[in-house]
Amino acid sequence: MSLFRHELKATDGAARTGVIHTPRGEIRTPAFMPVGTAATVKALYMDQVREAGADIILGNTYHLMLRPGAEEVHALGGLHKFANWPYPILTDSGGFQVMSLTSLRKMTEEGVTFASHLDGSRHLLTPERSIEIQCLLGSDIQMQLDECTPFPATEEQARVSMELSLRWAKRSKAAFEAQPHRKEGQALFGIVQGSTYSELRARSAAGLVDIGFNGYAIGGLAVGEGQPEMLRVLDFTVPLLPKDRPRYLMGVGTPDDLVEGVRRGIDMFDCVMPTRNGRHGLAFTRRGRVNLRNARHAKDPRPLDAESSCPAARDYSRAYLHHLIKSGEMLGSMLVSWINIAYYQELMAGMRVAIAEGEFEAFAARFKAEQATGDIQAL
Amino acid sequence: MSLFRHELKATDGAARTGVIHTPRGEIRTPAFMPVGTAATVKALYMDQVREAGADIILGNTYHLMLRPGAEEVHALGGLHKFANWPYPILTDSGGFQVMSLTSLRKMTEEGVTFASHLDGSRHLLTPERSIEIQCLLGSDIQMQLDECTPFPATEEQARVSMELSLRWAKRSKAAFEAQPHRKEGQALFGIVQGSTYSELRARSAAGLVDIGFNGYAIGGLAVGEGQPEMLRVLDFTVPLLPKDRPRYLMGVGTPDDLVEGVRRGIDMFDCVMPTRNGRHGLAFTRRGRVNLRNARHAKDPRPLDAESSCPAARDYSRAYLHHLIKSGEMLGSMLVSWINIAYYQELMAGMRVAIAEGEFEAFAARFKAEQATGDIQAL
Ligand SMILES: [Zn+2]
Ligand SMILES: [Zn+2]
Repeated sequence: MSLFRHELKATDGAARTGVIHTPRGEIRTPAFMPVGTAATVKALYMDQVREAGADIILGNTYHLMLRPGAEEVHALGGLHKFANWPYPILTDSGGFQVMSLTSLRKMTEEGVTFASHLDGSRHLLTPERSIEIQCLLGSDIQMQLDECTPFPATEEQARVSMELSLRWAKRSKAAFEAQPHRKEGQALFGIVQGSTYSELRARSAAGLVDIGFNGYAIGGLAVGEGQPEMLRVLDFTVPLLPKDRPRYLMGVGTPDDLVEGVRRGIDMFDCVMPTRNGRHGLAFTRRGRVNLRNARHAKDPRPLDAESSCPAARDYSRAYLHHLIKSGEMLGSMLVSWINIAYYQELMAGMRVAIAEGEFEAFAARFKAEQATGDIQAL
Repeated sequence: MSLFRHELKATDGAARTGVIHTPRGEIRTPAFMPVGTAATVKALYMDQVREAGADIILGNTYHLMLRPGAEEVHALGGLHKFANWPYPILTDSGGFQVMSLTSLRKMTEEGVTFASHLDGSRHLLTPERSIEIQCLLGSDIQMQLDECTPFPATEEQARVSMELSLRWAKRSKAAFEAQPHRKEGQALFGIVQGSTYSELRARSAAGLVDIGFNGYAIGGLAVGEGQPEMLRVLDFTVPLLPKDRPRYLMGVGTPDDLVEGVRRGIDMFDCVMPTRNGRHGLAFTRRGRVNLRNARHAKDPRPLDAESSCPAARDYSRAYLHHLIKSGEMLGSMLVSWINIAYYQELMAGMRVAIAEGEFEAFAARFKAEQATGDIQAL
């Protein structure tokens, strides 16, 4: 039996729940992966991330290759040891950040050259180098290098971009199989592109399945198309993916996006929203978003959510959280990031149970109703 | 028996160890008070502060009166509840920050008017208002408003300033006794001024003892005079203070300052150094200061100090701490601040034991030798 294995336990409509077995532990699906860009989930201790219920975190190849460097992390025993996170880690390919953060980019068939956003140094990222970096980091789930097609794109632009990603998928797979640093049980995922065009998505998925991956990601979404369009693309793209492999919707999203993604058969998500928003005092709660910067909280002795599983949502007053955020105190960012990561994990856990019990639609309806009620009345 | 009571347990030379009993718990002396300026010890959870061994923290009246406001904290149940710290809190008078942070200051016999560094709003801080604020915050140990005499000062400048502080001491005591918000067991400390002049210090101390306080602080030091001059002032000032009351050296200092202060009979200290330096990656350790920003740590898999009581010093590599600090990641500030607060508390605990065992001089000699060895050799 393979060391990397996706065990489906139950389905409810298109929604699925199961376990991805890896040498570093189990990933209960559907799963939300907190983003640990630079080997840290910003403003959180790894203990908090784990206790919140995260089975896996995401690391950013782009950031880590620049600082401290892939060879450096490898020499230090790998990313898990470096970051004090002994559980599964997924790394992206680096391509997305290269396109969003760097200057002087030049894309060729070989790969992409770019200037580091840190010091302007020049780098070349190829499918082969991306895999090498990910193997040096030692991540459990690795992603092929692709081009995240910008939105909007004409069908012709999307086709050219998707076909490049498909050729890179093939090279990524070959590089992965040839990698001396690869360990038994590490997995490689392909990435379906094709923008909003169903025929392109179908050709991309078919091409990837031909090559054969341990899991399949849907890329090129959550890039400005809006939720309705994203869900429309999921509606025709998810069914193209093998049932027995994990399906990962990249860079998504809001709590509602997660519920809608799971409803369509997605198993894995990642997004910076909980930590990025948390740092600035925007909390995700059962009753929707709460902006703790808002003056309505200044004199409010009540906790953010007395029923939360997260101590930060229960044991501190809204007035205190407001004060910390207004004062720019690090503890404010720490507490609200923690609240958000815990809420995202709570939401995933709720969906897993609901699917197992065949009650996903009831769960989703309750979720939407509760989100729609909005925050408790101001005092 | 008074609810606020200083119990001396042992002396060793001039060094003393004991317990200050308060309604909110015991303060083991000599004690270092982490600074919780804005109702948070920067970048730390209160649980970490407590577990590191802190019995008491310091809150800044100036910051809290401006944001969220003394009446606001009072309405929220007081500073202890607001900040999730149920143990003793000392608040300063606000005078020091008014002098160092504000503009448009005007000092009169009545008090000091100033413009807030946050929004330019005008405020008047008098001895009476300072006490009222501290009682609204509900702090366990309150400080008289004084003028921290700038350094250097002529003897005449120092005399005028010290005499103003003494008149304010008398008004502070009267205001404290008349305060409706005061609770049984709250304490008021007077502050000895007089710059570097022994005669002025003597007159200040005598005047304060005449008024009568629960404890006596030495102010106007650690303001640029340097350690030798500070110790010279302590040499003639500490013996002026009543033996049966806590002695607090304000705003001090480095680990060596703490040892030298304790050697001279100081019981309490506070300083922003462990947290301020921690935020920027400078660690205090048994073997002196370690700048984690330094490139020598970039590839070092060893912990900062394997024998530390602090998990942050044991469970993370120097390479990781270096990476976090270089990357501006909040976790770097969190970990190094934690390391420093824990080291300071470890040092105080060591001194308490040494004094109780009559081995303070041996302890101090070991401390100085170990500090002088410097950090472990680079790899
Ligand atoms: Zn996102
Ligand atoms: Zn200081």
